[in-house]
Amino acid sequence: MGSLSHATSREAALIADLSQRFGPPPEEVILGIGDDCAAIRGHGGDVLLWTVDTLVEGVHFDLDYTPLEKLGWKALAVNLSDIAAMGGEPRHALLSLGWPPRRDRAGALALADGLARAARQYGVAIIGGDTVASPGGLALTLTLTGTVPASLMLKRSGARVGDLVWVTGVLGDSAAGLEVLKRGLTLDLTLRETLVEAHLAPRPQLAAGRLLAREGLATALIDVSDGIATDLAHLCLASAVGARLRAESVPISGALRAAAALLGRDPLQYALSGGEDYQLLFTSPPELASALENAFVRAGLPAPRPLGEIIAGQGVLMVTAAGEQDISMQGYDHFRLDLPGEAI
Amino acid sequence: MGSLSHATSREAALIADLSQRFGPPPEEVILGIGDDCAAIRGHGGDVLLWTVDTLVEGVHFDLDYTPLEKLGWKALAVNLSDIAAMGGEPRHALLSLGWPPRRDRAGALALADGLARAARQYGVAIIGGDTVASPGGLALTLTLTGTVPASLMLKRSGARVGDLVWVTGVLGDSAAGLEVLKRGLTLDLTLRETLVEAHLAPRPQLAAGRLLAREGLATALIDVSDGIATDLAHLCLASAVGARLRAESVPISGALRAAAALLGRDPLQYALSGGEDYQLLFTSPPELASALENAFVRAGLPAPRPLGEIIAGQGVLMVTAAGEQDISMQGYDHFRLDLPGEAI
Repeated sequence: MGSLSHATSREAALIADLSQRFGPPPEEVILGIGDDCAAIRGHGGDVLLWTVDTLVEGVHFDLDYTPLEKLGWKALAVNLSDIAAMGGEPRHALLSLGWPPRRDRAGALALADGLARAARQYGVAIIGGDTVASPGGLALTLTLTGTVPASLMLKRSGARVGDLVWVTGVLGDSAAGLEVLKRGLTLDLTLRETLVEAHLAPRPQLAAGRLLAREGLATALIDVSDGIATDLAHLCLASAVGARLRAESVPISGALRAAAALLGRDPLQYALSGGEDYQLLFTSPPELASALENAFVRAGLPAPRPLGEIIAGQGVLMVTAAGEQDISMQGYDHFRLDLPGEAI
Repeated sequence: MGSLSHATSREAALIADLSQRFGPPPEEVILGIGDDCAAIRGHGGDVLLWTVDTLVEGVHFDLDYTPLEKLGWKALAVNLSDIAAMGGEPRHALLSLGWPPRRDRAGALALADGLARAARQYGVAIIGGDTVASPGGLALTLTLTGTVPASLMLKRSGARVGDLVWVTGVLGDSAAGLEVLKRGLTLDLTLRETLVEAHLAPRPQLAAGRLLAREGLATALIDVSDGIATDLAHLCLASAVGARLRAESVPISGALRAAAALLGRDPLQYALSGGEDYQLLFTSPPELASALENAFVRAGLPAPRPLGEIIAGQGVLMVTAAGEQDISMQGYDHFRLDLPGEAI
């Protein structure tokens, strides 16, 4: 997403300007522009989390290969991932639907079905919104609230030198799924389904986020929306640290390996900069490693994978057989695939 | 606006379908789909009000005659009017900005200046958001929270037979201003400025809304976004009553009279169905009439104008020299001018 929190450098400059014009937030605002959610101190030690995400036809999705039911699911999932990234519990959502006059009502209902399915799955209530004509294409804005006890809220900024870097699941499937869809790639049906589902129907890691918050198992947390090359760089920047990742520890699915082989691409490239995985990336002191793995297993969640460590300095280094290279935001464009992304 | 609360009949059918798919709201949600804001019961007797509005280029505004600074102001003003319509106090806003890649950054900053000016004027903090590329044209979504004590919150549904119907200011200026802009109409400069400002920079009636709520002076309240022919019909429908208006009591400015004469139109037509006035329309028992007027004067606000009364039955009747006619939603299209409106 091109959110005010996950920004390309051109966007980042604009956002800095906007932010300066909007002035400093009032004191009850714990997190303003620049994190996954805005966070507002409420009554009784609770924090209100609040996020907005817009998906635009032709930029974030292509209706030639995106069923409207899936789009509805994804629009909510993307927002839910921002709540997961703070360790929060989602509450209520408003939908603003920009609908092209030429599209039929059945499509709008399919979209609503997908939204409703995601809302039921993750315990969110869609309680209002706005409908407008959108001659330039379908556009969907979801705004979502959540709550988290102030003492448990996780941010990007708590990583400490020596912490391990973990991720909740495999990376790169979504980006490969998009390429499979765009190219109409022929692939074993099960592998294809895995990748395409990862792209069209991502699963926000709310249970993992809440577990990390509740058990105090993470020092910093972010969701992977732009690829870890970028998102880990954001986390490092917010925490004033660097990170070193081991290429061989980056979790990559068999489906991604197969698709990458067919496409003649390095699967690692998808995993690092593909984006839209919506896994959680977090840091945790090494002495908590077993507690962490046990907590996930006890909760019935897949064990997270360690893929590197936090170091002094800045930037994200990747250790491969060929040596060490900086893959952080500075190297973003180099690693970036031709994927739908934000622009300003 | 084509909000889920101010809907044309085609939209209303879709919204009913969406609403059914989203299911009934949880018990803490006092108002869901169908009022000006969603309203959620919070701690300590406070209600969280929450609204979203989207403005789309070519539908809600035309950049040929809409300066971006004014557009920023208006985008926030339109949302603030929804908070005013519940008697609430605005708190925080998130901006989702869909920006056409071809537009320059100076334009985005002008837009931000207008947003920031409205935010300062009305005591709102813009604390985050989303930026996306929008190849189909500029689109702006603002989502806004407010608060109101539960015991004071005003809704559309409290009007009683015998109540007087009041409005906080003149009607129709905004619609006439739009026509002046579209046609490049030559008009006395001061008159032109009045109408054009009403259209480009509406002033949400937050102080009036809070006064009505705090002093318990209104039984039902709505903001005038689609013209009173429609908005009073919404209020009547929600309250299960009808209304009778006197044509000669509808407040019309000298500027509107002058412009309507030039355009060969009946000024009343603008006032009834022009829309985008963002005045407050409310009902109040007749015995509170003097208290009401005094409270406004004491608060330094322009005195509201009575323009009719609530009657048993349904629909909105307009009494003119020619007799009585039903101008409520059923007659909406007849009265409707060629103005930018919602469609689904």
